[in-house]
Amino acid sequence: MLATELIARKRDGQAHTRDEIEFLIGGITSGEIPDYQTSAWLMAICIRGMSEDETVWLTQAMAHSGATLDLQARWPDVVDKHSTGGVGDKTSLVLAPMLAAAGCRVAKMSGRGLGFSGGTIDKLESIPGFQTELSCQDFLDQVERIGLAIASQSAELAPADGMLYALRDVTATVDSLPLIASSIMSKKLACRPGRLVLDVKAGSGAFMKTLDQARRLAEAMVRIGGAGGVRTSAVISDMSQPEGCAIGNALEIREAIETLQGRGPTDVIELCGRLADALGVPQARATIASGAAFQKLMEMVDAQGGDVDAIEQPERLPRARLVRELPAPRSGYLRTIDAEILGRAAMRLGAGREQKREAIDHAVGFVLRAKIGDDVAAGQALLEAHANDERKLEEALALAAGAYAFSEQPVSSPELVKAIISAS
Amino acid sequence: MLATELIARKRDGQAHTRDEIEFLIGGITSGEIPDYQTSAWLMAICIRGMSEDETVWLTQAMAHSGATLDLQARWPDVVDKHSTGGVGDKTSLVLAPMLAAAGCRVAKMSGRGLGFSGGTIDKLESIPGFQTELSCQDFLDQVERIGLAIASQSAELAPADGMLYALRDVTATVDSLPLIASSIMSKKLACRPGRLVLDVKAGSGAFMKTLDQARRLAEAMVRIGGAGGVRTSAVISDMSQPEGCAIGNALEIREAIETLQGRGPTDVIELCGRLADALGVPQARATIASGAAFQKLMEMVDAQGGDVDAIEQPERLPRARLVRELPAPRSGYLRTIDAEILGRAAMRLGAGREQKREAIDHAVGFVLRAKIGDDVAAGQALLEAHANDERKLEEALALAAGAYAFSEQPVSSPELVKAIISAS
Repeated sequence: MLATELIARKRDGQAHTRDEIEFLIGGITSGEIPDYQTSAWLMAICIRGMSEDETVWLTQAMAHSGATLDLQARWPDVVDKHSTGGVGDKTSLVLAPMLAAAGCRVAKMSGRGLGFSGGTIDKLESIPGFQTELSCQDFLDQVERIGLAIASQSAELAPADGMLYALRDVTATVDSLPLIASSIMSKKLACRPGRLVLDVKAGSGAFMKTLDQARRLAEAMVRIGGAGGVRTSAVISDMSQPEGCAIGNALEIREAIETLQGRGPTDVIELCGRLADALGVPQARATIASGAAFQKLMEMVDAQGGDVDAIEQPERLPRARLVRELPAPRSGYLRTIDAEILGRAAMRLGAGREQKREAIDHAVGFVLRAKIGDDVAAGQALLEAHANDERKLEEALALAAGAYAFSEQPVSSPELVKAIISAS
Repeated sequence: MLATELIARKRDGQAHTRDEIEFLIGGITSGEIPDYQTSAWLMAICIRGMSEDETVWLTQAMAHSGATLDLQARWPDVVDKHSTGGVGDKTSLVLAPMLAAAGCRVAKMSGRGLGFSGGTIDKLESIPGFQTELSCQDFLDQVERIGLAIASQSAELAPADGMLYALRDVTATVDSLPLIASSIMSKKLACRPGRLVLDVKAGSGAFMKTLDQARRLAEAMVRIGGAGGVRTSAVISDMSQPEGCAIGNALEIREAIETLQGRGPTDVIELCGRLADALGVPQARATIASGAAFQKLMEMVDAQGGDVDAIEQPERLPRARLVRELPAPRSGYLRTIDAEILGRAAMRLGAGREQKREAIDHAVGFVLRAKIGDDVAAGQALLEAHANDERKLEEALALAAGAYAFSEQPVSSPELVKAIISAS
């Protein structure tokens, strides 16, 4: 096979065979196919799309491009959870200990934040001492020992995904359903948990802006999971406003702790419950009230070298020097809290990064004091901003003000779970 | 401007501004925009297309990406001719001396062959000693002195074209009307002749297989020429069968010499006449009978270091060791002589190259003994093959046999000139 002939097929809108896709992914992984051919192919996929079969084959080829961990062969009950990312998304920090406390093994590899959306690994690293870079062996050992580990995505698994993602990022080929679905699912199939639940966020603060886009992505990923022998389901959840109240790494850890202590925002608790249900582990809901989930978080933090005292006394987590409120410019019912705008404003504070490998400030971010549907008085605080730099604080507050819209009429809060997609 | 944002615009089918195109071509030429971004952009152009304005801007940006020669400022009467390439296409070798003998200055830069279609530079290099690599200064001096020069395309002119072409060749982005038109015309606008005629070939042995494709390419190039201040017209000529009878470098030189001596195939003579007419130089037709065109060829060969004796005595040109005829398998009227198949069979003999910089054998090729419409008897020679390798000869003859189809009924020969496109 010749790479140029295969690129021409996709350019002309034809479908690839499984062999063709394996040839291309093999050549990309080995370096035999140069970047300029790969990026031409990615652009052709971006514009022409891929069939369901092609997307499954692409994902499997990427999943097998490096080392693999057949988790379900070790532990039939092992579960994983993945979110497509959103603003204030701390679900993994709450759900993973809940599931482990309910008796599942939870083996989760996760990523860092990029752009307006945060990443679980960055959030965990705001806990002093917490190690996210585990070898595959240490990761497996910890799951065996305490039933729970959350580690940074191993570069040994699905290396083709890392290569493709790096190119997509600089060639305007990120925005493609088959490429997004295969990127996420290749890493999951490389680990092969027994069951997987996907939290597909839809709305301004998510990558998928509409329910329709989110549903198509969820359906594609559930299909890919099933074809790869992983029982997969997806919950499509609202990301029109931020999840919970905290945005920013240490602030979200604090909110996750409060949630596991029974004092969390109702949307975070409810979403974790729905995700546990989708995994077939409804009994995980009870682990908050029993304190078992909080104990499991402590065990994980301890196992990964983190400061357990900072979990019991969250004021020991990194704290910003400056805290300032954003007053409501008028009274009324909160109609909009644009999650993407707040995500970008949090980046301005230093909570996120524009480019990979940029340093971030774990302490900074926002805590919302009101959510959609709340009746606020003029001058009442809409949020408090936590900052370490006066200029950035001013800029971020100015940006954040643009996220809000008000209504004279009562406004109902958006439905949290918009759809649940299960394998057919 | 950010390259990724501009690539995304084209990915989404939007039109570029002139500034955007200049930014991209500038960045590609300087190396600031890496190959993998360029190839993603080229694929997006290939699939999404470009407007007439975008194509003009692209061509002008490429034309100005390096050194330029403003030929028309030196010599208002200077003319150029370009063919989109075909099998047996020796028109330049005949027309350029005709035009120079008629008093025009002819300053032509030309290319090498790739794939089934030959190149004027390769053909000229079958003349012993003939130099095709002239400096721009030597090229200009020769045009000043004898009114005629045909040199290899200078790498100093329109360097962006060379870079884009090299990438297109390996990323399946060759087949795009705006990219083909801008590639050809950027090199012409970098030289800026006073008048330009394009021989756009249509049919099996050409890049454009249909009249409709050829017409759209011709119209685009005539428009680009006009926008760049070059009076441009195009002749769309038949390439369903090879041009003339000779295919292969020295064999075509020999046929060009015979044509300039008044003994050439009628289609070559007629096409050169129609191209001269399109340039507004009908008096060039008389330069064959007068011998002036042949004298001008001799002058050019002499000026460029070639062996003039080999022009006067063409048996001194490179000759192949083996000559064998292909007999007609049946009697009938010749209905088809597939020019692409014969072009590929000639490549098998060694007359052309698959990859740039491959060596070629100047001596080998075919001489047709019959053309479409001829009534042939079974066993009569359809062509003679000239080869230097027995195995290649056998393979090439087997391939060539597949180029022919016969009819019981009389067949008319195809119309040579299918359309003439002038500036509106």
